[in-house]
Amino acid sequence: MKFICSQSDLNTNLSLVSRAVPSRPTHAVLGNVLFVADAKSGRVSLTAFDLNLGIHTSFSAEVTESGRLTLPAKRINDIVSRLPEGEITLTAEDDENEENLSAVLTYSAGRYQINGMSAAAFPDLPQVEDKEKIALPVCALSEGLKGALFAASTEEAKQILTGVHVVGSEDSLEFAATDGHRLAVVKTPLENETNSELEDFAATIPAKAFRELERMLAMCQATDFVSLHVDENQAIFELGDRRLTSRKLDGAYPPYEQLIPRQFSRTVAIERKRLISSLERVSVLADQTNNLVKFTVDNSQEQLTLSVESKELGSAKESMPAQIAGDDLEIAFNIKYLMDGLKAIPSTEIQMQLNEGNQPVIFTPLGGLKMTYLVMPVQIIR
Amino acid sequence: MKFICSQSDLNTNLSLVSRAVPSRPTHAVLGNVLFVADAKSGRVSLTAFDLNLGIHTSFSAEVTESGRLTLPAKRINDIVSRLPEGEITLTAEDDENEENLSAVLTYSAGRYQINGMSAAAFPDLPQVEDKEKIALPVCALSEGLKGALFAASTEEAKQILTGVHVVGSEDSLEFAATDGHRLAVVKTPLENETNSELEDFAATIPAKAFRELERMLAMCQATDFVSLHVDENQAIFELGDRRLTSRKLDGAYPPYEQLIPRQFSRTVAIERKRLISSLERVSVLADQTNNLVKFTVDNSQEQLTLSVESKELGSAKESMPAQIAGDDLEIAFNIKYLMDGLKAIPSTEIQMQLNEGNQPVIFTPLGGLKMTYLVMPVQIIR
Repeated sequence: MKFICSQSDLNTNLSLVSRAVPSRPTHAVLGNVLFVADAKSGRVSLTAFDLNLGIHTSFSAEVTESGRLTLPAKRINDIVSRLPEGEITLTAEDDENEENLSAVLTYSAGRYQINGMSAAAFPDLPQVEDKEKIALPVCALSEGLKGALFAASTEEAKQILTGVHVVGSEDSLEFAATDGHRLAVVKTPLENETNSELEDFAATIPAKAFRELERMLAMCQATDFVSLHVDENQAIFELGDRRLTSRKLDGAYPPYEQLIPRQFSRTVAIERKRLISSLERVSVLADQTNNLVKFTVDNSQEQLTLSVESKELGSAKESMPAQIAGDDLEIAFNIKYLMDGLKAIPSTEIQMQLNEGNQPVIFTPLGGLKMTYLVMPVQIIR
Repeated sequence: MKFICSQSDLNTNLSLVSRAVPSRPTHAVLGNVLFVADAKSGRVSLTAFDLNLGIHTSFSAEVTESGRLTLPAKRINDIVSRLPEGEITLTAEDDENEENLSAVLTYSAGRYQINGMSAAAFPDLPQVEDKEKIALPVCALSEGLKGALFAASTEEAKQILTGVHVVGSEDSLEFAATDGHRLAVVKTPLENETNSELEDFAATIPAKAFRELERMLAMCQATDFVSLHVDENQAIFELGDRRLTSRKLDGAYPPYEQLIPRQFSRTVAIERKRLISSLERVSVLADQTNNLVKFTVDNSQEQLTLSVESKELGSAKESMPAQIAGDDLEIAFNIKYLMDGLKAIPSTEIQMQLNEGNQPVIFTPLGGLKMTYLVMPVQIIR
């Protein structure tokens, strides 16, 4: 293998694929990045794979000798990212003698000989039988992930909840995530074209893979499209020369629509950032075992009051103006769940919709995105 | 106690003194900040003390009732730093009933009742008999600490080496720090005035205290002066309304001047940042047990070459132009010790002065500060 490329090309692509390298690889070769240089096409491709999530990318280079090899992801990354801009040459002996494999990286002022491993041991990325692909607009995917990803569960015990559930329809994509305590649902419209192939589409993709997809989307134009290929087990997202492969999560996603109340007896409109700042301050004195905040909705004063109390630490109360419809109410929440959702809602003003103090509450942005954040209240002990 | 002040005054002073609050206080009250409000002078003073290091500060406020109380440093800090700009009122009942002490902080939109502890349990900061004070220019102190602090030992076993040794003379201040493997010495000139009181001055101050002093200096003008009061056990640095108290370290500081060779058979002048970048890159493949880099000084090529080798990881070589006087030489160093010093030297070009491969090497800035960084080489095993 021998190729010449620019430091910036190699650096960008290496740091991209490295995100799929597991921090504690179960097999040594999975800690490596697979390099494949092809003289015919004049391209170098890089692949990393943790057996669930795979990232593949390619870039053009002056390839004078085709070949393949794996190199330790962290080390090659640490070296390349610290090199000055300019030309880099990477060469490696043929992969026949599988002992003592190494690559030599040279640049204007230095030479690095980096021990690697044979490409033969590197697992293939799963393929999907290419029946049809679905075109997803980058902006719809980004908005959906931004509003839903944070609510997925991190507990491996409830596997299906560690994913984000995506459901297609002819004119929209819906993203849902829940960890059993709260639920975030975002519906993003698909403008211009009707996507008939999306009508029956539904899949639950691990949040970890979607987090990496989110990073990759940030490098795209909002008007670009992502091609999605799916079969029963795998989902592959293609963004130009880049490809993210993830297994799908098995099992039925919980029927979350049933949790969202259709009617509410009270609504409260408030300034989102002001509510976040007040919550951050009062949380300092919240009881550390239950992390509870009480909301007092006062219609006559047009005021929302937050209060916390801890025998050990003290107590706090903050008030803010609010537009209120419906009767006065006291209701309590876990501060963390509230805060996560409020931070993800992308609007200046938000609306809280409530029924009674023991029934689910939803938060929605006023204007803009169609997002619903549902939180279960906590019982107030008197 | 009752006073009104601005959020920014309280916030700035609280975050300053909080630096002296131990993360795991041996006595609960040491996790608190002592508030003392004085109606006569119209000032509020804050004090934190970990029994070695103390920070005291004061600011003017509308004090309507004198009093004293201690409040949990982290919690009061977390609340005040998150408050919007504007007026804050702090009130507390008299300190007679020592049970259930608390302060009430109010601002335009909220009320915080914060549990505290009696001021009576808070230890007094050590005082120094005020024979004479020494005036130290802020710029000399800053430069000295910047160039020496990093070299102090972090091992509590060699107590004296955990400090920075400061020696005064009529026209300069010298700062020295060593951990036994390397030594940094900075001599800063005292311009304009002769400081006769400095002539016999010498003290070893814990690096931890000097790190906090460095932060406080960053808030001063370079032309300001710091007043230093010392006795056998304590040193007190006064910067306007702020005061840092530290115990001195007992014992004789090692006679470091003797370690610095007077004559050298070789000198190498190099670009500092280029050397740092090369070291950072080759260090990726350095053997992880001894972290060793070899320098090859090549007079005829006017070139310095760095090389590392690890059986497991690979090898690396980088070359850079250098102005060399003296014969060729191979010499090896621990990369960490080299890097620490190179990062602290404040100049574009640096000079390496060497004798043989097993003798101490010194690095000095070319132009500007008078700084000496001495490193012991490591034996090259062949």
